[in-house]
Amino acid sequence: MIRVGVIGYGYWGPNLVRNFSEVAGAQIAAVSDFSADRLALVRRRYPGVTTTGDCGEMIQDPSIDAVVIATPVSSHFELAMRALEQGKHVLVEKPLAGTSSEAALLIEAAERRRLVLMVDHTFVYTAAVRKIRELVSSGALGDVYYYDSVRVNLGLFQHDVNVIWDLAVHDLAILEYVIAERPCAVSATGMSHVPGGLANIAYVTAFFENNLIAHIHVNWLAPVKLRRTLIGGSQRMIVYDDLEPSEKVKIYDKGITVKSNGPESVYKVLIGYRTGDMLAPQLDLTEALRTEAQHFVQCIEEGSRPVTDGGAGLQVVRLLEAATHSMNHRGQVVEVGKGQAVAA
Amino acid sequence: MIRVGVIGYGYWGPNLVRNFSEVAGAQIAAVSDFSADRLALVRRRYPGVTTTGDCGEMIQDPSIDAVVIATPVSSHFELAMRALEQGKHVLVEKPLAGTSSEAALLIEAAERRRLVLMVDHTFVYTAAVRKIRELVSSGALGDVYYYDSVRVNLGLFQHDVNVIWDLAVHDLAILEYVIAERPCAVSATGMSHVPGGLANIAYVTAFFENNLIAHIHVNWLAPVKLRRTLIGGSQRMIVYDDLEPSEKVKIYDKGITVKSNGPESVYKVLIGYRTGDMLAPQLDLTEALRTEAQHFVQCIEEGSRPVTDGGAGLQVVRLLEAATHSMNHRGQVVEVGKGQAVAA
Amino acid sequence: MIRVGVIGYGYWGPNLVRNFSEVAGAQIAAVSDFSADRLALVRRRYPGVTTTGDCGEMIQDPSIDAVVIATPVSSHFELAMRALEQGKHVLVEKPLAGTSSEAALLIEAAERRRLVLMVDHTFVYTAAVRKIRELVSSGALGDVYYYDSVRVNLGLFQHDVNVIWDLAVHDLAILEYVIAERPCAVSATGMSHVPGGLANIAYVTAFFENNLIAHIHVNWLAPVKLRRTLIGGSQRMIVYDDLEPSEKVKIYDKGITVKSNGPESVYKVLIGYRTGDMLAPQLDLTEALRTEAQHFVQCIEEGSRPVTDGGAGLQVVRLLEAATHSMNHRGQVVEVGKGQAVAA
Amino acid sequence: MIRVGVIGYGYWGPNLVRNFSEVAGAQIAAVSDFSADRLALVRRRYPGVTTTGDCGEMIQDPSIDAVVIATPVSSHFELAMRALEQGKHVLVEKPLAGTSSEAALLIEAAERRRLVLMVDHTFVYTAAVRKIRELVSSGALGDVYYYDSVRVNLGLFQHDVNVIWDLAVHDLAILEYVIAERPCAVSATGMSHVPGGLANIAYVTAFFENNLIAHIHVNWLAPVKLRRTLIGGSQRMIVYDDLEPSEKVKIYDKGITVKSNGPESVYKVLIGYRTGDMLAPQLDLTEALRTEAQHFVQCIEEGSRPVTDGGAGLQVVRLLEAATHSMNHRGQVVEVGKGQAVAA
Repeated sequence: MIRVGVIGYGYWGPNLVRNFSEVAGAQIAAVSDFSADRLALVRRRYPGVTTTGDCGEMIQDPSIDAVVIATPVSSHFELAMRALEQGKHVLVEKPLAGTSSEAALLIEAAERRRLVLMVDHTFVYTAAVRKIRELVSSGALGDVYYYDSVRVNLGLFQHDVNVIWDLAVHDLAILEYVIAERPCAVSATGMSHVPGGLANIAYVTAFFENNLIAHIHVNWLAPVKLRRTLIGGSQRMIVYDDLEPSEKVKIYDKGITVKSNGPESVYKVLIGYRTGDMLAPQLDLTEALRTEAQHFVQCIEEGSRPVTDGGAGLQVVRLLEAATHSMNHRGQVVEVGKGQAVAA
Repeated sequence: MIRVGVIGYGYWGPNLVRNFSEVAGAQIAAVSDFSADRLALVRRRYPGVTTTGDCGEMIQDPSIDAVVIATPVSSHFELAMRALEQGKHVLVEKPLAGTSSEAALLIEAAERRRLVLMVDHTFVYTAAVRKIRELVSSGALGDVYYYDSVRVNLGLFQHDVNVIWDLAVHDLAILEYVIAERPCAVSATGMSHVPGGLANIAYVTAFFENNLIAHIHVNWLAPVKLRRTLIGGSQRMIVYDDLEPSEKVKIYDKGITVKSNGPESVYKVLIGYRTGDMLAPQLDLTEALRTEAQHFVQCIEEGSRPVTDGGAGLQVVRLLEAATHSMNHRGQVVEVGKGQAVAA
Repeated sequence: MIRVGVIGYGYWGPNLVRNFSEVAGAQIAAVSDFSADRLALVRRRYPGVTTTGDCGEMIQDPSIDAVVIATPVSSHFELAMRALEQGKHVLVEKPLAGTSSEAALLIEAAERRRLVLMVDHTFVYTAAVRKIRELVSSGALGDVYYYDSVRVNLGLFQHDVNVIWDLAVHDLAILEYVIAERPCAVSATGMSHVPGGLANIAYVTAFFENNLIAHIHVNWLAPVKLRRTLIGGSQRMIVYDDLEPSEKVKIYDKGITVKSNGPESVYKVLIGYRTGDMLAPQLDLTEALRTEAQHFVQCIEEGSRPVTDGGAGLQVVRLLEAATHSMNHRGQVVEVGKGQAVAA
Repeated sequence: MIRVGVIGYGYWGPNLVRNFSEVAGAQIAAVSDFSADRLALVRRRYPGVTTTGDCGEMIQDPSIDAVVIATPVSSHFELAMRALEQGKHVLVEKPLAGTSSEAALLIEAAERRRLVLMVDHTFVYTAAVRKIRELVSSGALGDVYYYDSVRVNLGLFQHDVNVIWDLAVHDLAILEYVIAERPCAVSATGMSHVPGGLANIAYVTAFFENNLIAHIHVNWLAPVKLRRTLIGGSQRMIVYDDLEPSEKVKIYDKGITVKSNGPESVYKVLIGYRTGDMLAPQLDLTEALRTEAQHFVQCIEEGSRPVTDGGAGLQVVRLLEAATHSMNHRGQVVEVGKGQAVAA
């Protein structure tokens, strides 16, 4: 039985606690939070769980096997590092850390102690995103031409990170999981409309070495909630709408056909339009966080590497850094290198 | 009675001919096209109209008062200039010309001869866009924070211009009409997925001197057709969906409230969310092109300046040039100056 | 070349004329209407067509081979009968006639002279309804359990028939085409909210000898336009939404599974729910009326029986009569017999 | 502090327990259920709550003030009567009882002991339905012409009641709350597609003494979930879609205008169509069951009559009986009298 401690019982922590308490092989042993009210709520809901206002206690408690961190981004590195140093397996809410050098240090620390370091890239554990990865990797889409995501709503403004770190992080994590290649460059634009200067609307383009282009639109100040991704391939195209109650992934047998009359006639190419059936595959309805919690527990038990390991977390943080830098320079392109994971 | 000649009876020409034939004070006198089949179609539909394969004839015909140009972009300048030199009033399909210097020459030529030069920025003549302008200029939205447009579908790939010139032109024309300020800089990204290298997907950001940001996503290779614009203001926000059969414009009484505890506490600003009713105002259903044709005729009759005059056409072409340049340099920002119309 | 005369150039007539003028093997020879303005419109659009205010002329014109009737329902019988008596093939806008005895007389008259008598059950010629028929007749749906249609909008109130005769007629025609069996009884309710007493909202249930049930909701006074049909089968279910631009027919691999523990435990039956993929098949985009016009011409040329022949028209009229009778008696069931076509 | 006991912890019971545990002035004292597993779940979630497999214990427990019944319909009467006889206030899940005579006996028993008897007509406590009632009673809709509801999905088949008792009950409860008049007659049709013969699809028409007509379509075997109600009035019309995340109620300023040329020309009436803005009012997001639980507690504290009292429950049961009878006779109309509440 793996004994899990959770740091932070604010917005996301309750979901983590609820899911870990229902995973076979694990139990929630302790929860820490700054707020006494939040801890009282934990005790009411989970009478057997120890609560504490001092997460240091939990981190040092030898009966705790794994620590789950659901705190503001700025504290991720310090808490995760302390937990790793105490020999705990660690699951960190996205993004893994506030800088890529911090993320690299966490990877190194986990590797050295052969501990599981996992980042909570939640969407990677949804049936929809897993289906999309399957469609991409099986070649059903053909060559992938673009990934275009819109993730907007009214609220929740964050106080320590801009909207890219809060929302685009989901799409960067999905890209890392779904697409075999990694971006080579990033260009981003955005704007702040509140005092403090953290951008609340942003547009991120990621370039790849082939002609794949990814674009992410995130916005905390939209009149409606939208979660819609278009993925275009040479053979098929996908509309993924996470707000659809059942038909979240729609696969369109659509595309273009290109005919040219020889190399010299490159500008007289003839484009034809191909359109066939649309299929919305049935998707498993298991909550993503349940699947994720089970995966974390299994990785600890088996000593295996998680799908969303430190390397994935680092890659996403690198792109977040690059995007923020580009946004601060009104779209100036930022090369992001080969994007190899440190651990490799 | 103003006698109108139309050059080009391909995709858009028939709509122009149909609408001008129903405007009081005007009549379609002649239509030219390269294709004998297309001209036969004109004669079948409009038995009284002269048809010709040589637009030069029409341009020199002294009985023709005004020429409407609905040909590929690359021919706009030459045809419009010839018509102006023959003393004809001219309406040019969007964009006004293939370069901003060409557009400036057209403006100058029209001014010299006191002729009407108008560009077919169709959306400016829709009830939806006029309502949006009214909401912006009356202050109902408050400060405008962003304009975000998605204009994607499968097809129609153009052979002489990229997708920015084909589709983003609509949004740039709407911006020119709706927003009192003009952009000061542009950053764009995009990609081509067909031989020939013309981008078929593109993302354009326009910056303004205040904190307004505009973004346009255009795509010829999308599995679904979308025409949806979000406009965020400090007081209200708009969703404009041109594919909605009746409720095209939805006005949300939503936004944020900002409280801070003084100048030093700028990062501890408190964001509140405000949400009220949504209103979808009734919109006049007149076809935009009818309104536009009437406006062109009226400007000729009264010697007045059209809403979408040469200056508006030039401004849009400048932004198209800047966006294409930026896209070719992976998002590098391009300053577009004060954007004063040449004629001013 | 089959020469066609059209009686009535009001709401539907222009669509008939436009489609027949583009069918190979046919030409519009004449159009009649009471209104001189409407006839002027015909001449402007179709300069070669003869127009007349007296449909009698057209009916007696020996150069006319076929007559298409697009007039109010109350005149269908008289005009169709006169045309048949003059040896013309006849296509009548739905419903075939104002009473079933009139419809039977038309069938008899056409049979006697070996003329084609066809009713304009337009939806039967759409790709969507043809796909649905294919799914039903191939057994893909399994046993058909129900057909449920909603057909509502604001307007167009008719002056001579109630909303059942105006709108439910479409669904009764679809049922006649899609379902092998015919209804054995009808129950209907409805209400009038305008002077004159013609029901503007109605609900029609059709019973079959097996456990299939059909229901049609029609309404001239709805705030939104809806055209949505649910068809439930033991194996699959369909949502047919005629207002969807592309995915009009969605096939759901959904249903229930029934397990019981033996004949005595009939009330303890265990229901399981089965849910699989959804498929929206590609549909041909040809306008239904074009297909229909071609079919009429082909039937005349080949002397064959149309899909929507007099028998289909009669059956629909019988059900309209039964539904109106039931509605006038607040849902009292009306048996409609075996519903065998007169001609059989 | 009012001590509440809940009988039944199956599908709906957990929602009742959760909401009552968060209402000021009340506490969940005990929960009973036949299933030991369900009771274990209660203890895990609510450690302080007494659980029992014998609801008789709870009913006789003098420390319990109020009993909430969330069991199959067939047991409502017996359990509610026993609780009333023990002096408990009672809240019964919809419908109040399995027959109208049982419902009348419950009303009488509660009146005699001056106890609160309330039925869980949940939708009456939603902000959407309360807004609709306000629009109707203020006259904003004008004369109400029709109420048309569609409430369909796949599952949950009930074992002791047909789909009318399971789903149409919601609409009958809404009608009872929203419309000042009560139906005078009912006609219903329906069908069973599973062994056991309980109808799984049904259509219910309710007639009123004026020209208002109500219709309810309920179906356990639909491929998609729909919860959509159209309400038509002479001045305005409503679309109420309970599945819309935010804009559940849309008010259309639409309708018809009727002109006639005098009393004799009643059939030549001229219908005009009037269309204006659409407004979606902001709605309070409080969970209906929370509002309802608070109301129950308040009625006990103040000795006041609940909005959904026994009379409302009886009226709904009467209509359910009438509809089932009519359905069993294929739509035969059933008069339901003046529908005065027993207690009046």
